[in-house]
Amino acid sequence: MSGHSYDTGRLNLPFVGISTFGKRPYVADWSAIRADVAVMGAPFDFGTQFRAGARFGPRAVRDASTLFSFGHAGAYDHEDDAIYLGPEVTMVDIGDADIVHTDTESSHANIETGVRAMLNAGALPVVIGGDHSVNIPCIRAFAGRGPIHILQIDAHLDFVDVRHGVRHGHGNPMRRAAEQDHVTGLTQLGIRNVSSTTKEGYDAARAMGADILSVRQVRALGVAGVLARIPAGARLYITIDIDGFCPSIAPGTGTPSHGGFLYYEVLEILQAAAKAHAVVGIDLVEVAPDYDHSGSTAILAAQVLLNLLGFIFHAKKIA
Amino acid sequence: MSGHSYDTGRLNLPFVGISTFGKRPYVADWSAIRADVAVMGAPFDFGTQFRAGARFGPRAVRDASTLFSFGHAGAYDHEDDAIYLGPEVTMVDIGDADIVHTDTESSHANIETGVRAMLNAGALPVVIGGDHSVNIPCIRAFAGRGPIHILQIDAHLDFVDVRHGVRHGHGNPMRRAAEQDHVTGLTQLGIRNVSSTTKEGYDAARAMGADILSVRQVRALGVAGVLARIPAGARLYITIDIDGFCPSIAPGTGTPSHGGFLYYEVLEILQAAAKAHAVVGIDLVEVAPDYDHSGSTAILAAQVLLNLLGFIFHAKKIA
Amino acid sequence: MSGHSYDTGRLNLPFVGISTFGKRPYVADWSAIRADVAVMGAPFDFGTQFRAGARFGPRAVRDASTLFSFGHAGAYDHEDDAIYLGPEVTMVDIGDADIVHTDTESSHANIETGVRAMLNAGALPVVIGGDHSVNIPCIRAFAGRGPIHILQIDAHLDFVDVRHGVRHGHGNPMRRAAEQDHVTGLTQLGIRNVSSTTKEGYDAARAMGADILSVRQVRALGVAGVLARIPAGARLYITIDIDGFCPSIAPGTGTPSHGGFLYYEVLEILQAAAKAHAVVGIDLVEVAPDYDHSGSTAILAAQVLLNLLGFIFHAKKIA
Amino acid sequence: MSGHSYDTGRLNLPFVGISTFGKRPYVADWSAIRADVAVMGAPFDFGTQFRAGARFGPRAVRDASTLFSFGHAGAYDHEDDAIYLGPEVTMVDIGDADIVHTDTESSHANIETGVRAMLNAGALPVVIGGDHSVNIPCIRAFAGRGPIHILQIDAHLDFVDVRHGVRHGHGNPMRRAAEQDHVTGLTQLGIRNVSSTTKEGYDAARAMGADILSVRQVRALGVAGVLARIPAGARLYITIDIDGFCPSIAPGTGTPSHGGFLYYEVLEILQAAAKAHAVVGIDLVEVAPDYDHSGSTAILAAQVLLNLLGFIFHAKKIA
Amino acid sequence: MSGHSYDTGRLNLPFVGISTFGKRPYVADWSAIRADVAVMGAPFDFGTQFRAGARFGPRAVRDASTLFSFGHAGAYDHEDDAIYLGPEVTMVDIGDADIVHTDTESSHANIETGVRAMLNAGALPVVIGGDHSVNIPCIRAFAGRGPIHILQIDAHLDFVDVRHGVRHGHGNPMRRAAEQDHVTGLTQLGIRNVSSTTKEGYDAARAMGADILSVRQVRALGVAGVLARIPAGARLYITIDIDGFCPSIAPGTGTPSHGGFLYYEVLEILQAAAKAHAVVGIDLVEVAPDYDHSGSTAILAAQVLLNLLGFIFHAKKIA
Amino acid sequence: MSGHSYDTGRLNLPFVGISTFGKRPYVADWSAIRADVAVMGAPFDFGTQFRAGARFGPRAVRDASTLFSFGHAGAYDHEDDAIYLGPEVTMVDIGDADIVHTDTESSHANIETGVRAMLNAGALPVVIGGDHSVNIPCIRAFAGRGPIHILQIDAHLDFVDVRHGVRHGHGNPMRRAAEQDHVTGLTQLGIRNVSSTTKEGYDAARAMGADILSVRQVRALGVAGVLARIPAGARLYITIDIDGFCPSIAPGTGTPSHGGFLYYEVLEILQAAAKAHAVVGIDLVEVAPDYDHSGSTAILAAQVLLNLLGFIFHAKKIA
Repeated sequence: MSGHSYDTGRLNLPFVGISTFGKRPYVADWSAIRADVAVMGAPFDFGTQFRAGARFGPRAVRDASTLFSFGHAGAYDHEDDAIYLGPEVTMVDIGDADIVHTDTESSHANIETGVRAMLNAGALPVVIGGDHSVNIPCIRAFAGRGPIHILQIDAHLDFVDVRHGVRHGHGNPMRRAAEQDHVTGLTQLGIRNVSSTTKEGYDAARAMGADILSVRQVRALGVAGVLARIPAGARLYITIDIDGFCPSIAPGTGTPSHGGFLYYEVLEILQAAAKAHAVVGIDLVEVAPDYDHSGSTAILAAQVLLNLLGFIFHAKKIA
Repeated sequence: MSGHSYDTGRLNLPFVGISTFGKRPYVADWSAIRADVAVMGAPFDFGTQFRAGARFGPRAVRDASTLFSFGHAGAYDHEDDAIYLGPEVTMVDIGDADIVHTDTESSHANIETGVRAMLNAGALPVVIGGDHSVNIPCIRAFAGRGPIHILQIDAHLDFVDVRHGVRHGHGNPMRRAAEQDHVTGLTQLGIRNVSSTTKEGYDAARAMGADILSVRQVRALGVAGVLARIPAGARLYITIDIDGFCPSIAPGTGTPSHGGFLYYEVLEILQAAAKAHAVVGIDLVEVAPDYDHSGSTAILAAQVLLNLLGFIFHAKKIA
Repeated sequence: MSGHSYDTGRLNLPFVGISTFGKRPYVADWSAIRADVAVMGAPFDFGTQFRAGARFGPRAVRDASTLFSFGHAGAYDHEDDAIYLGPEVTMVDIGDADIVHTDTESSHANIETGVRAMLNAGALPVVIGGDHSVNIPCIRAFAGRGPIHILQIDAHLDFVDVRHGVRHGHGNPMRRAAEQDHVTGLTQLGIRNVSSTTKEGYDAARAMGADILSVRQVRALGVAGVLARIPAGARLYITIDIDGFCPSIAPGTGTPSHGGFLYYEVLEILQAAAKAHAVVGIDLVEVAPDYDHSGSTAILAAQVLLNLLGFIFHAKKIA
Repeated sequence: MSGHSYDTGRLNLPFVGISTFGKRPYVADWSAIRADVAVMGAPFDFGTQFRAGARFGPRAVRDASTLFSFGHAGAYDHEDDAIYLGPEVTMVDIGDADIVHTDTESSHANIETGVRAMLNAGALPVVIGGDHSVNIPCIRAFAGRGPIHILQIDAHLDFVDVRHGVRHGHGNPMRRAAEQDHVTGLTQLGIRNVSSTTKEGYDAARAMGADILSVRQVRALGVAGVLARIPAGARLYITIDIDGFCPSIAPGTGTPSHGGFLYYEVLEILQAAAKAHAVVGIDLVEVAPDYDHSGSTAILAAQVLLNLLGFIFHAKKIA
Repeated sequence: MSGHSYDTGRLNLPFVGISTFGKRPYVADWSAIRADVAVMGAPFDFGTQFRAGARFGPRAVRDASTLFSFGHAGAYDHEDDAIYLGPEVTMVDIGDADIVHTDTESSHANIETGVRAMLNAGALPVVIGGDHSVNIPCIRAFAGRGPIHILQIDAHLDFVDVRHGVRHGHGNPMRRAAEQDHVTGLTQLGIRNVSSTTKEGYDAARAMGADILSVRQVRALGVAGVLARIPAGARLYITIDIDGFCPSIAPGTGTPSHGGFLYYEVLEILQAAAKAHAVVGIDLVEVAPDYDHSGSTAILAAQVLLNLLGFIFHAKKIA
Repeated sequence: MSGHSYDTGRLNLPFVGISTFGKRPYVADWSAIRADVAVMGAPFDFGTQFRAGARFGPRAVRDASTLFSFGHAGAYDHEDDAIYLGPEVTMVDIGDADIVHTDTESSHANIETGVRAMLNAGALPVVIGGDHSVNIPCIRAFAGRGPIHILQIDAHLDFVDVRHGVRHGHGNPMRRAAEQDHVTGLTQLGIRNVSSTTKEGYDAARAMGADILSVRQVRALGVAGVLARIPAGARLYITIDIDGFCPSIAPGTGTPSHGGFLYYEVLEILQAAAKAHAVVGIDLVEVAPDYDHSGSTAILAAQVLLNLLGFIFHAKKIA
């Protein structure tokens, strides 16, 4: 059998192989997570108010992440002259939280269990939604582990308190977060246009510690200006609703809103945030592949996540 | 202004106008329903176990129904030499039941309210799903109005009792129906392949009054053979899961199963059933337009519903 | 440079090369047509009453026809043990009739001009629509060239006289044909369900020489039974509305109607007709590629046309 | 029945209910329009020169408009700290103008009738196309009601006089408008690249009162610079061809042209125009949903229209 | 944490979790395969002659297979009153063979290596293509392991010898198989229409041991008639080209051919074959998800494979 | 026949007629090319490392180019006040190079043959891919015809030497070009993010004469700044990988990378380059229509190519 390609390893083109996140190892046993980063899917979408389908977000983002599986020795970025996510950064995919149809409470509880498992293992938890309501159990899992500040990229404020009895839909997570003792503040970027949050919601958000900036306001401030508004020393939990981006690059989502961020605008904020702050948790939500016929949205999600992880561990290495 | 087409009415091509079901009048006030038939959407899909999106089923079926809006004086069928749904049959669209995201109980309660309103008005209720769990409140609304026998077209038995606490998902409706005092039996046609119902579910179904036939068994029996198995004089509630049909004509659904019914197989059973029995209620569920790129599935749903309604009222006219 | 593939001709895989019909030569000069068969596109779709887009039918059918461009020495069919469309049958593509937006009359006139040119050249004219109204100028072009009998495959009768002033839409062609002196009769196969033709239209059709059969009636008669109803010696003009087929294999059309013909049902009728009758003209209409995401409909159209042409010239060879 | 959600009104999520524009009431009787704004569909697309399908533009834009149906008490915009389209602004959907296939003249006449009805009722008419030729009857309906200046957002000049006899296709509307006595001038923004208008058309346009600016020229001028070129006091009729936008956010159109406007570029011009001028009529055309797989284009159309209406009535309130 | 769903295992809905085939365990180490069945992807598609994209076949079929992941204790089939693939049948997914772009020889060698590994482990090898050329290394891997008879389901004969130097494209595999000493014969079902194989190819096939039947010939023979033509005692290698099926249920393939098999036609032949013969290897090829917008084709592939595996091991259990 | 539109020529709307590039004449005989510009398809995609399908790039770009077929007397651009590609510029479409499945070497040789034929005829060769590996034979064809400098628009460096034996995939072309004696340098614009090229590849590229600029670096330099880095007097070969553009306008490609160029950024560089340099050859690659549902990518490709050709010949005319 000598002479064929396996002797020296596999070429492992992106279209080849099982779709775990970044083609990293799958760990089924949540008590045996041993890695710097752990990635979990949270395929829950009963919290959506327009188009569903975010339940297939984790599969789509995992598939898309294989496009960036070149370069086992890390990814070289010529602009930064840096190699990101080299072999010194270990990452595992722990699969999905169990979702129970018709049952929001159980589904959310299972997501929380997963995040706790990742945190207990000392791994940086990365959760791929699912709709934005999955952020609620993610934030709950951080209780008792020190204060966190939330950095949100989103079109919508998601600050509805309770309406028709609904407290855990995708319009509520930031309100639920702000209510937690361990959440010290929120920086909400990209907020624009009509949403399910009313004027009262905006007022309440500001009263509860939110700094709300539209896309145009972020552009006017610049990266440094935005970063300056995040409290120094804050431990960041970053939540990225893909609809924070412009529908031109993120059409595959349930409630798109025109006028969103372009790619580098978010990337540069994330890079700067990763340099200036400890990032303790990440979720990326609302990728709905049924509306993403070209795959651009899932590719964006994978590209943003992998870059953000690269920035975080590069900053640690340098520091 | 004389001389233009409005003088003598509108041509009203299918692509023109607001998409109510069959372009029939919309009645927003549920206490003012005055019609032989009332159509309501039930855009609930949190009960799905694979692909979501049936929440847009009502809109898609309404849109598709406009294709059959020719012939204001009724639809002529040359095979039957009959005019169906002529002006003597009145029909209204009462819009959708209100759905509350994350909250199955409230959403189902609102559906039940709508069916009760239609029944109270003396109209034949037609409910367009949504996933098959919407059948649960539909059947509940018939409590206290005499016995009914359920005629189900479906790939799946939907007879799960309770699993992980779930009692009202789209795998449970026939079990929930069989538990009702006013449900005297079930004829389940098209059941095939693997589903969420186990062998124990099949045994329970038969014990609780179910007559289960696969597609091939129905073909072997023929229309008359199938009809003969429905108790004489039964008042029928017909529930059509679009996945009872072959994916070749109904690809746009959440859990397709190959080997399903072709068009005339179902149509002829429905026509025969409408001749032999009183039909007291109808639902058609699981049209998921995101998987129906050509629109064939929604057109099938509209075509089946309009034909079934034609058969029912033609049978009454003749009788 | 000797030794590369051009020395012995090209492999010419289906995905390679300019998309003329069957990759046959393009003849721009309509006074210089020299072939047994000439193919023309008629990309007109202002006659549609539901979904438009048949204007791209010619391009889609040409593209699909390249799939069958293997076998330069003809196509071997093992069931018939025959080679169809060998080099003895010459075929050209004369491009499209010029279409003038907003102007039905001019567009139809240009189609008629093209068919006359093909007839004048002694070629069998094959017209690819466009909507079914393009049949109107096709039939007009046969005036003064002997009697023809129309064999129609269609879901719809297309026998509306005039409604709101419209006489040349896609619901009118068979009425317009029946009015022509050179049209001696019509055999209309596959007619089913609701359409824009009323009961009065059916009565008029029969009075004007139409033999109307539904899909189920055709099935009951069998191929021989259907053929027996076409007058002996009739010179056939065959018009195939792709919606005569089941939407399962022809979803890409403007007004699909469930319950249509399957592939061999039509193929065998066409094969028998080509054996028993002279075929003097063909059109195939209503392929709307925007609703044909998998390409199945265009492939069906190309496959049917190429087989029909094979049958016609094979019958001539044997005769 | 007390206790369920209807007691306190409906949650009315975007995916629930009949798709009228903005879920506003449907008024079938055009002599009974009582509202500040009336919206009509003009599903005509025989004027297109490339891809058809704009006939389904009204349905798609209505569907998309439901995404913005949150907030019955108006839509709060945190950037402007304003509530737009509160209950003080009344709006109705009057359905579609009747379209007659193959007949441009009748179809256009019916559109004109609808616009006249809205104007007679004192409502601001909003017409959703359809192709850009529907602007022709819209502008005709304003005859005798005072002078208007046209503000056009478009990739194409649409200033063809007559070619091959065509005077009322989608390449002609601005020429037809400029010929009207009540049209005092045109400001044409976004014009770029190759189109059906020749150099002679540009010369004629300028001679007849057109101010033509490309996307890059608009960017160089800025919002204020553009506004300064519109005559003070002009009563504006705004016509928005969705292909004025970049195909990145408006792919679903018949003749896309790269290099178009981004979202805020148009929004800010519209906001400034609504502050500085009386807006007397609006049309938005060329949304072709068959090319809009993610729905982004229809969402853009709905978002632009609802924002523009908000700006207009907010300006009136303040003034 | 007691009380949540993990205490009693996971609900594990189809849309949840990593997409290995049937959600079975992934075994990365090919020297450590311990299972009755091993599944490998062969994502190679450079052998295609029309539409590519079969490289994503393995991912699509794995995704689709999760739909059938209900019923951990096996899948109950009420028609057969049997439980298939219960816990007594062990199955693993060994990932994909390594593919080297531009290099057919290396890619095929890697596929052969994988099949040998599965055979060496004593597992039934199941290979998911990729285009039909991947059958070539699969068959080569059986050399020296006893005689096999090939049962092929396909639209095309795939019996081209060499053309323009190509010997290992997707038109060649059955010729390459027939040349092998260990291949004792071929039963080729579904062969129809034009393909890349000429009349000479058919003659050669028959001379080399092929029994060729069209879809209509299979229908005329019936299941028993077809089975009777396979030599008694033959050890079967089953190769299923998804284009053997009708495009109505298998549109997502590179070279669709109308007139193919319906679902039960193939299923019943496979069931009968599994009862009468030892099945020693399986491949299923030519699923091209880019043309499978509804997912029907991938679902068909998964459904056929899982049923076939169920039949094989059920037959062993009974025997 | 007088009176119909052919008397004065055809209207020739974009959707009418055979899809050659720009509807220019097709020249099948490569020894008889007589034109200023010759366009050839190179439908080869076995060199792709993620999504295939670029083999249909030539057909898609030809189809899209018909949108710009207005204006037989050339295309008027009001921004430049220039008429581009008037009748003085002759252009032909010579069809596609013959592609041999499974055989990269033969396919590339056939592409090279085509480019040599165009060069021998004195025409400017324009090659439409296919994947970027088709650039390899294009550059080889320029050997012995004087030095060239390569101007590349791309997301990826494509500078892999050899990996797992692959030297002619779509990750290798710029390395292969740099190895040629007649290639004097490369300007590589748009390079960003992770790709198959490692840090060593970047180092090698710079050592072999490459000037590498990211999108952000190009933006910082401006058009003039970029142009200043190209050696004066260089004869340019321009290779445009469509993934150099932002996925917002070019989703239809195999390996999209967010953060790419917008339309005018590339257009203005090309316009400036065409003014300052002789352009001796062009290829445009990686359009994969299966991921281009709205057609935007193919339209972009056609629009860029036609504008670039316009710029080149306009510069010659002025010079």
